Amino acid sequence: MSLTKHLLSLAASGLLAFGLTAAAAAQTDPLPSWNEGAAKTAILDFVARTTTAGDPDFVPEEERIAAFDQDGTLWVEQPQYSQIQFVLDTLADAVKANPALVKNPVVAAALAKRALTEPELIELAMIVQSGMTIGAFDQQVRDWLKTARHPRWNRPLIDMTYLPMQEVLKLLRANGYRTFIATGGSKGFVSPYSQEFYGIPPEQIAGTAQQLEFQIIDGRPELIRTPHVATNNVGAGKIENFVMIYGRTPRAQFGNSSADDQQALQYVKNSPGLRLSVAILHDDAKREYAYGPAQGLPDSPIGTFSQEMYDLGKKEGWVIVSMKNGWNRIFSFEK
Amino acid sequence: MSLTKHLLSLAASGLLAFGLTAAAAAQTDPLPSWNEGAAKTAILDFVARTTTAGDPDFVPEEERIAAFDQDGTLWVEQPQYSQIQFVLDTLADAVKANPALVKNPVVAAALAKRALTEPELIELAMIVQSGMTIGAFDQQVRDWLKTARHPRWNRPLIDMTYLPMQEVLKLLRANGYRTFIATGGSKGFVSPYSQEFYGIPPEQIAGTAQQLEFQIIDGRPELIRTPHVATNNVGAGKIENFVMIYGRTPRAQFGNSSADDQQALQYVKNSPGLRLSVAILHDDAKREYAYGPAQGLPDSPIGTFSQEMYDLGKKEGWVIVSMKNGWNRIFSFEK
Repeated sequence: MSLTKHLLSLAASGLLAFGLTAAAAAQTDPLPSWNEGAAKTAILDFVARTTTAGDPDFVPEEERIAAFDQDGTLWVEQPQYSQIQFVLDTLADAVKANPALVKNPVVAAALAKRALTEPELIELAMIVQSGMTIGAFDQQVRDWLKTARHPRWNRPLIDMTYLPMQEVLKLLRANGYRTFIATGGSKGFVSPYSQEFYGIPPEQIAGTAQQLEFQIIDGRPELIRTPHVATNNVGAGKIENFVMIYGRTPRAQFGNSSADDQQALQYVKNSPGLRLSVAILHDDAKREYAYGPAQGLPDSPIGTFSQEMYDLGKKEGWVIVSMKNGWNRIFSFEK
Repeated sequence: MSLTKHLLSLAASGLLAFGLTAAAAAQTDPLPSWNEGAAKTAILDFVARTTTAGDPDFVPEEERIAAFDQDGTLWVEQPQYSQIQFVLDTLADAVKANPALVKNPVVAAALAKRALTEPELIELAMIVQSGMTIGAFDQQVRDWLKTARHPRWNRPLIDMTYLPMQEVLKLLRANGYRTFIATGGSKGFVSPYSQEFYGIPPEQIAGTAQQLEFQIIDGRPELIRTPHVATNNVGAGKIENFVMIYGRTPRAQFGNSSADDQQALQYVKNSPGLRLSVAILHDDAKREYAYGPAQGLPDSPIGTFSQEMYDLGKKEGWVIVSMKNGWNRIFSFEK
């Protein structure tokens, strides 16, 4: 089937979902924040081919799974991960609830405002995010989100999600794909807001997960969060754990970091059948941030995009999205 | 709403799913293998209340999740778990592929046909089920199922599933519930047949899971099964891991074993809102097996149902199903 025919068929299927007329559909662009170009065409083409009956690349609906990294792929990850901000903001409450925590050297360092290494930050997160019931932690995240603001734009975090990626999520779902988050961050941190922020339910979030412990408290069975990591989604763990937990390999994978997305993008792209691997290149210092050594960008401890991953992606046929050139709007609040 | 009204409403909703007329529906029993009685009524009532708009116990569709233990709840677990049969049947192939395995004392004991303890059997399973790609293991299970037979009935394993439970799975799905397996067995073992046997897709199986390892083999990225347990679904682990992975508590939980289902049944039943916990009592030695010390049945190392769990279930309002009295047919091949 030709690409034009694919796109018409895609537009028609989008139609049905929204109940528009055929005439209106011809004018409907499902990705209006994306500039015309190779990246936009590749995404539309992938969706069309995998969802058009009779196409050699047709994928049955039960196998239509797309996985998205969160930090740097669905929302801003600079100048620090939002989860780290949450952990630092709620550290005082955690110490108040459990004063013995001050004896922990990482907690003491954080309270003294010393800069922490990445492993120390992870240890701190596991500590702060444990000791309570799952319901109490969920509420704590929801409460924090009510007042949390991004330091640069002073806006609530829901505004820090990328409009072009929201459009991709909706496009995929309108075409029978189920959208998942595959994050190195904590599943328990993402679950309370993923439905509202991204339209993604908690059972479709694969994240680093802390073990729960069944306890009888005041005669009532409870599940208590522990500081022990059960599934660690850092590095190759992201794709290892996704496939282990869901028993399926995504058809489409979206990420941005050499440290935490490279193996997932590589594994998905090399799996049988038509697959889509999309890597977001943060190269727009004016509208967002520019970082990661690919293409001579400044290095960053967060979300690094190496030249090696860039070259691998080009060689394997990933879609590499320049935020500067590929997106005409990044945030919904932009004019 | 009265129970009669509930049941009429339930019948009507079942109707829509199958496209029957209202007259036909009045005669349609969604649980024909269940004898009339408290257990059948409780299940029908739960489904009606939680799916009837306007009912105080109405549950939105995204929260309609039901979790089923497999061994002893969905299919026969005596005289030994089918997975153990698989492990023993494929041990020779594993040793052929990796001769160094004979040095492992558990492998040596199994090869010498010595009886193994439960921890030894688990260790043996982890060894036999590791070292290959996920695709190769999946194929191994599928191949084994082609010839595997239950020793008592000499029938393929799909015939060893309980007809009354197949009816419950279909009833729940026809009413907007998603059905999950929550097994102490290996997720990787259950995934290859769960869709065919139970209509349950791999992403809805929570089982004991072995870590996968990303490796580049002959220039190609692969996920290799390792002998390390990432999530252990034994005992309280079943409910701990289910809630950790999916971020939701089931509305309905089905099990049969004090060792591996008690905490899940207890946690679900005590969670807010109307919940259903169903425990299957194996008390029919003639048509199936009778075991587990509850109600004076013989003890068994597999699927034990203690008197303590029986009393707890009665106190908390679980539905305890006597297979002997509750089910008029157990298997689909019975006349």
